[in-house]
Amino acid sequence: MNKYTAGLAGFTGYSGVELIDILRRHPSVEPVLLEHRSDSNDRPLPRGFQGPRRLACTGEAVAAAKLDVVFLATHQGVSMELAPPMLAAGAKVIDLSGAFRLGTPAQFQRWYAEEHTQPGLLAEAVYGLPELYRDKVRGARLVANPGCYPTAASLAIRPLVEAGLVDVAAGVVCDAKSGVSGAGRKPTLKNAFCEVTENFSAYSAFGHRHVPEVLMNTGLEEAQFSFTAQLIPVFRGILETIYFRAPKGTSAEAIAAAFDKRYTAEPFVRLYDHGGFPDLASVNHSNYCDIGFKFDAASGRGLVVTAIDNLGKGAAGQAVQNMNLLLGLPETEGLQ
Amino acid sequence: MNKYTAGLAGFTGYSGVELIDILRRHPSVEPVLLEHRSDSNDRPLPRGFQGPRRLACTGEAVAAAKLDVVFLATHQGVSMELAPPMLAAGAKVIDLSGAFRLGTPAQFQRWYAEEHTQPGLLAEAVYGLPELYRDKVRGARLVANPGCYPTAASLAIRPLVEAGLVDVAAGVVCDAKSGVSGAGRKPTLKNAFCEVTENFSAYSAFGHRHVPEVLMNTGLEEAQFSFTAQLIPVFRGILETIYFRAPKGTSAEAIAAAFDKRYTAEPFVRLYDHGGFPDLASVNHSNYCDIGFKFDAASGRGLVVTAIDNLGKGAAGQAVQNMNLLLGLPETEGLQ
Amino acid sequence: MNKYTAGLAGFTGYSGVELIDILRRHPSVEPVLLEHRSDSNDRPLPRGFQGPRRLACTGEAVAAAKLDVVFLATHQGVSMELAPPMLAAGAKVIDLSGAFRLGTPAQFQRWYAEEHTQPGLLAEAVYGLPELYRDKVRGARLVANPGCYPTAASLAIRPLVEAGLVDVAAGVVCDAKSGVSGAGRKPTLKNAFCEVTENFSAYSAFGHRHVPEVLMNTGLEEAQFSFTAQLIPVFRGILETIYFRAPKGTSAEAIAAAFDKRYTAEPFVRLYDHGGFPDLASVNHSNYCDIGFKFDAASGRGLVVTAIDNLGKGAAGQAVQNMNLLLGLPETEGLQ
Amino acid sequence: MNKYTAGLAGFTGYSGVELIDILRRHPSVEPVLLEHRSDSNDRPLPRGFQGPRRLACTGEAVAAAKLDVVFLATHQGVSMELAPPMLAAGAKVIDLSGAFRLGTPAQFQRWYAEEHTQPGLLAEAVYGLPELYRDKVRGARLVANPGCYPTAASLAIRPLVEAGLVDVAAGVVCDAKSGVSGAGRKPTLKNAFCEVTENFSAYSAFGHRHVPEVLMNTGLEEAQFSFTAQLIPVFRGILETIYFRAPKGTSAEAIAAAFDKRYTAEPFVRLYDHGGFPDLASVNHSNYCDIGFKFDAASGRGLVVTAIDNLGKGAAGQAVQNMNLLLGLPETEGLQ
Repeated sequence: MNKYTAGLAGFTGYSGVELIDILRRHPSVEPVLLEHRSDSNDRPLPRGFQGPRRLACTGEAVAAAKLDVVFLATHQGVSMELAPPMLAAGAKVIDLSGAFRLGTPAQFQRWYAEEHTQPGLLAEAVYGLPELYRDKVRGARLVANPGCYPTAASLAIRPLVEAGLVDVAAGVVCDAKSGVSGAGRKPTLKNAFCEVTENFSAYSAFGHRHVPEVLMNTGLEEAQFSFTAQLIPVFRGILETIYFRAPKGTSAEAIAAAFDKRYTAEPFVRLYDHGGFPDLASVNHSNYCDIGFKFDAASGRGLVVTAIDNLGKGAAGQAVQNMNLLLGLPETEGLQ
Repeated sequence: MNKYTAGLAGFTGYSGVELIDILRRHPSVEPVLLEHRSDSNDRPLPRGFQGPRRLACTGEAVAAAKLDVVFLATHQGVSMELAPPMLAAGAKVIDLSGAFRLGTPAQFQRWYAEEHTQPGLLAEAVYGLPELYRDKVRGARLVANPGCYPTAASLAIRPLVEAGLVDVAAGVVCDAKSGVSGAGRKPTLKNAFCEVTENFSAYSAFGHRHVPEVLMNTGLEEAQFSFTAQLIPVFRGILETIYFRAPKGTSAEAIAAAFDKRYTAEPFVRLYDHGGFPDLASVNHSNYCDIGFKFDAASGRGLVVTAIDNLGKGAAGQAVQNMNLLLGLPETEGLQ
Repeated sequence: MNKYTAGLAGFTGYSGVELIDILRRHPSVEPVLLEHRSDSNDRPLPRGFQGPRRLACTGEAVAAAKLDVVFLATHQGVSMELAPPMLAAGAKVIDLSGAFRLGTPAQFQRWYAEEHTQPGLLAEAVYGLPELYRDKVRGARLVANPGCYPTAASLAIRPLVEAGLVDVAAGVVCDAKSGVSGAGRKPTLKNAFCEVTENFSAYSAFGHRHVPEVLMNTGLEEAQFSFTAQLIPVFRGILETIYFRAPKGTSAEAIAAAFDKRYTAEPFVRLYDHGGFPDLASVNHSNYCDIGFKFDAASGRGLVVTAIDNLGKGAAGQAVQNMNLLLGLPETEGLQ
Repeated sequence: MNKYTAGLAGFTGYSGVELIDILRRHPSVEPVLLEHRSDSNDRPLPRGFQGPRRLACTGEAVAAAKLDVVFLATHQGVSMELAPPMLAAGAKVIDLSGAFRLGTPAQFQRWYAEEHTQPGLLAEAVYGLPELYRDKVRGARLVANPGCYPTAASLAIRPLVEAGLVDVAAGVVCDAKSGVSGAGRKPTLKNAFCEVTENFSAYSAFGHRHVPEVLMNTGLEEAQFSFTAQLIPVFRGILETIYFRAPKGTSAEAIAAAFDKRYTAEPFVRLYDHGGFPDLASVNHSNYCDIGFKFDAASGRGLVVTAIDNLGKGAAGQAVQNMNLLLGLPETEGLQ
């Protein structure tokens, strides 16, 4: 059987490298590197090393090669440039940047502080969080792969809000921590080894551009949601500690039931018994989103701890999950 | 001039080693090691290495040597054993464990799950957070050095509660992260390198035994305070991200003013401009507690980020600050 | 098709966990956990987590289940106990400890400072470094999986000695560095996070028990080989820097040719161009042994840098490579 | 008493920050920052933070302020520009770059691949390794502070060569490992957190520009000295493992005696008993060079393990030691 072909723009970044790793193990898809910008800082390779085949990162090359899918693991500005020619070349597009995630050009303008140059595609794009929007993804031409923080936060919060187990007036707190690969591979002082090791810092409070995705997915309003992003001295992994207040009469069982209802059949969401929490080691190098919780019925204080690999379910893994949906393959193929 | 003498029980733990380091640079105090339990795992030392002089860890030896102060950097059970003979020997005692921090034997029983064997001393002990209780510390015989987490949390929260800037009914969240030295030097699987590196985990939610100290220092009730303790893969440092809701009409200026009022004259509390946050590198190897905040007046969402060195202001540094008060020395001596 | 079955004793250690990971992806083999000693410190698991099936770690259970292979990822003392009943139960045995690696009971006594209780099996065991002893492994009943350090050192040094490119009288230096998982999962002060992070230490010089394996594989004599083992603050990976002097007239091309001759057809040894070196990131999470070198023809100074994953080619990966040989499967199955 | 004043150019790099830290604790010297290039990436500071006073980095400003000493913690190109005006302004100059370390412009050209623009000053400069050249330093106007690697290597090797305990024909190997701060603070991909953490790499073999300093200090010839530089995922610290062969009849006692003879009276060199080795934790945040060794008399194999803090004895600490000599202060002042 012939394999599907998947082009990859931005293959030297951390999400790009992770995509190559996943796709090389995928039984039904062959990865193809789209050479957009050279990275001259590549590491030494063993002699005879064979990477995936390479094409120019142009609509012509993609059309000629009849690629089925193109992943854009690029900055949002580059993604807005590349999405139109890739779609015109007949490929489905999965964009890992923030270019096509928000609802309107105005929202994009507010949170990314730049103008959206493809408002038509922004309107068309489907937000690719399969556990919430699976059916829409199946029929999409352009998928906006969710942000890493919003993936974990949305999967943790939405079932509770839906089930009426959150006193939204008291506010929801999401204290988020991420490994350094979330900040990309471009060298900056903030990501330099000596600035990060033996350190831990809060780098964005309230105004992080991932916030509107969480609001969109959970129905919370901005004034109800307090979000802080922090940097852990590790390569990969996100852990979010989420605090809420529940209405009187809520029980730990009701919370467990709300998660169960949503996720029992989900292959990539795993639940823990009351009081058991995942950590980064639970999920790294996987496409899982793990969710644990603790609830004090007497006071109504609730806590959810959720973990994902920011390069897995938070980026490349989820992108492949979306690709599987777009191509009609089993959703878990290549991901377990 | 003769120096004061300070005995140190538990000198092979991380707080103990830090105490030795600080005291060896202290111009007015000579440290003396009290050999209570041998640690056969000591590291190789250069030839001719001269540590502080050593005594047996007994009341007789302390009395004979007329030590002025004794630090107990020991487990709470050992501290309850050692405090009486050391006090009887005429030394003032600064205990770094949780043995003498809480208000009553019943509270101790609840949070430490063991009986308090020295209820008289528990009643007598003064809680040694100088910024809140300086005058009481000056006259004390037995000082309970605060826990690391409560030091940072209490200094951050108390001024806001006092000034009426916290809607306590909506609850206060303290998301706390600590370096691994906070867990002590006894080898366990949880503190093994391979379990901690490239990981981040929540290890205690709501029920951490440091919680009652924060309640005591801030006036919050247990049902109003959500606390989670988490492990960062670093040697030292605590960062706490604290979330609260302010009453209508609160401004960032009012919050800044509340901190200013409390801390302008404090040598070891440093404040940041609105939106500026400390990180671990701001405070490690110091006795500072650094406090930054962010406030969204439109929604009333408030955030405080506070950092200390868990071995500095969170343990040994604060213990020396208390010692300076007990001995009538300048409070900052040996700490800057 | 029915899968082969592979029992695993010592499945909670780092090599054991790695073996489970590899075997769960292996298309022809089903792993079975042999419960020898419970590890009560297991991490929290998601609800419904399904590990491999479990059996008692006894000859009876292994015989009844007709296991094809048993891996012993246990201490050498336990391996000497378990090998006889497992062999008697009809399983082939791959031992990851040092129990069956050396040539004679006297050598074992010298380097491990304990008596060998199974001299007959020691005589029978085949040393499982496939690149050197592939044919013998194929016919073995008991395979001694090589030590991690000797795997890298032997593969790097042997082709050069064989080709006469090493002035053995001048001595060969192997400066070896390993991640912390090489020391096992039992908590000790030496492996505690706070002792290892931000540190680097030499823990064994000349007398490491892995030395005799290198001598056996390369033909060097003990007096010609200087070996130091050092601890890097990382989870996994070994890098060895090997220094030698070449006879007059040696060229970089001759060195490259010696490696080529040995390894061109080897699936798990990768070579670098002159002056290009692998690092830990080149090999971690793989079964590769990567080899780079640099040679100064004017002075005859030679340098080899070789890297393996101590849990991959240095333990579990190589054990599976040996299993594939024992079972007549393609040597690379499950390892790429 | 008036303090001496020490200007500091390049105060935002890691060596510069370390210099400020040391000088602020120095009882006889006041640091002054010379603003040469602004670093806009500075970290947030607490309100009211008081750093040292600042001057323009010009000869005029230095002359007007009558600075006694100027430290150049700058790149060699900048150091060649700044040294002449600072000397003309009447200050003694201690340069931490490689600009003035080598013997001749030709050597500089060979190892730094650029032309030396100040050959007169190169000829005048004194190499500032006090344990070897103390008297010359005392009378100098321009001191070339040694490289970090050569400081440790030279102090370890020289006593053995001097005493005839090294078979130089067999060659000396120095396997050197450094923390990441040794590579400076300018962000590059090689120093990015995600490239360094959980990794270990050899980045320079034989041709490192620190090699000629070791040859100069030890009398070894280039063909006799094999040097590799490697990157440890830690902030600070250097450990070097040095291998040599001794002439027949050499004993461990003879080696110990050679070190003793050289270093018994040295305040910053510490020796270990035979078989005891320092690690990074032994020396970090200090100006010590720690030396341990192991010797096998039967085979003549010798090993020295030496450790320094690359920012202490390897840069800023040694620079202050040199400053003390230049100013006639006690050599250890401010360094213990």
